[in-house]
Amino acid sequence: MEFDLELSIDVLSRTPAAVRALLEGLDESWVRGTEGPGTFSPFDVVGHLIDGEETDWMPRARIILAGEADPVFEPYDRFRHTSRNAGRTLESLLGEFEHLRSDNLDEVRSWKLGSRELDLPGVHPVFGRVSLRQLLAAWVVHDLGHVAQISRVMAKQYTDAVGPWIRFLPVLTDHPVPRS
Amino acid sequence: MEFDLELSIDVLSRTPAAVRALLEGLDESWVRGTEGPGTFSPFDVVGHLIDGEETDWMPRARIILAGEADPVFEPYDRFRHTSRNAGRTLESLLGEFEHLRSDNLDEVRSWKLGSRELDLPGVHPVFGRVSLRQLLAAWVVHDLGHVAQISRVMAKQYTDAVGPWIRFLPVLTDHPVPRS
Repeated sequence: MEFDLELSIDVLSRTPAAVRALLEGLDESWVRGTEGPGTFSPFDVVGHLIDGEETDWMPRARIILAGEADPVFEPYDRFRHTSRNAGRTLESLLGEFEHLRSDNLDEVRSWKLGSRELDLPGVHPVFGRVSLRQLLAAWVVHDLGHVAQISRVMAKQYTDAVGPWIRFLPVLTDHPVPRS
Repeated sequence: MEFDLELSIDVLSRTPAAVRALLEGLDESWVRGTEGPGTFSPFDVVGHLIDGEETDWMPRARIILAGEADPVFEPYDRFRHTSRNAGRTLESLLGEFEHLRSDNLDEVRSWKLGSRELDLPGVHPVFGRVSLRQLLAAWVVHDLGHVAQISRVMAKQYTDAVGPWIRFLPVLTDHPVPRS
């Protein structure tokens, strides 16, 4: 599938509601469970998505659109949320994510991007030259990957509870070495 | 995490809204994309979840609760939905899933299950003796696995679009040999 700006914004606009449907009011045993030491719980994932809104996708898109000679992105801190959100409730994070995402998509729409802008380059600190189009596609995939992660991490809390059914439930044996 | 009936019903009750948040009104290019020949699109996953409501979890739970001498489950047809739902719209399937799930959870609540009932046995056609508790846990995990699958399959439609970002987006390289 080719990148499409409107279809990408559509998916990005859905993520806060999808995450809320999965998590709002859910028991802490699901919300705080992980896949093992150093891996994200669903609570952590919401914090990570907020970090993405504030420090990753939009700042990098703005660097690209500024059109400077050397559009190098700032490195991104994948663990900013762990200190930032100590003491926060899941409910407050869900609301914050919703507002940040909504404001960010309003800003993206205001840019009225055409193919000239979508082709503009940025420089990623690890893998070098990328386009604004690739950045926006990665934002969509990043969302979907983390929705999948929330579901997978929740599922794994019942790994023992399913007994022999584990053979038919591949989500329980995905990521045996946890990635996030 | 130990099996908990109320917490399980809570997760099961959320799935229709989570799937709707991800898919309702979404472009066909996302809804009908797959991971390759013989694998499920998000549309197929909704049909498969409906099949589960009608022919898998509840019929098997009823067999267990009937307490017959030989509580063997019927085999389950994972591809029933492909012929059943030809010509159906996604919107109608989302509504059908919601109603079936709601009715089924009403029935589960009406059983007033305690630990005696949850320990009752059934016989799975492939792996033999299981308990009602394990069946209900597997139902929860099955839901979560398929929510993860919907997200993963959607993400993969942008595998080429993200360019070099693929290295940091493990959802794109999960299930290189597609399962479920």
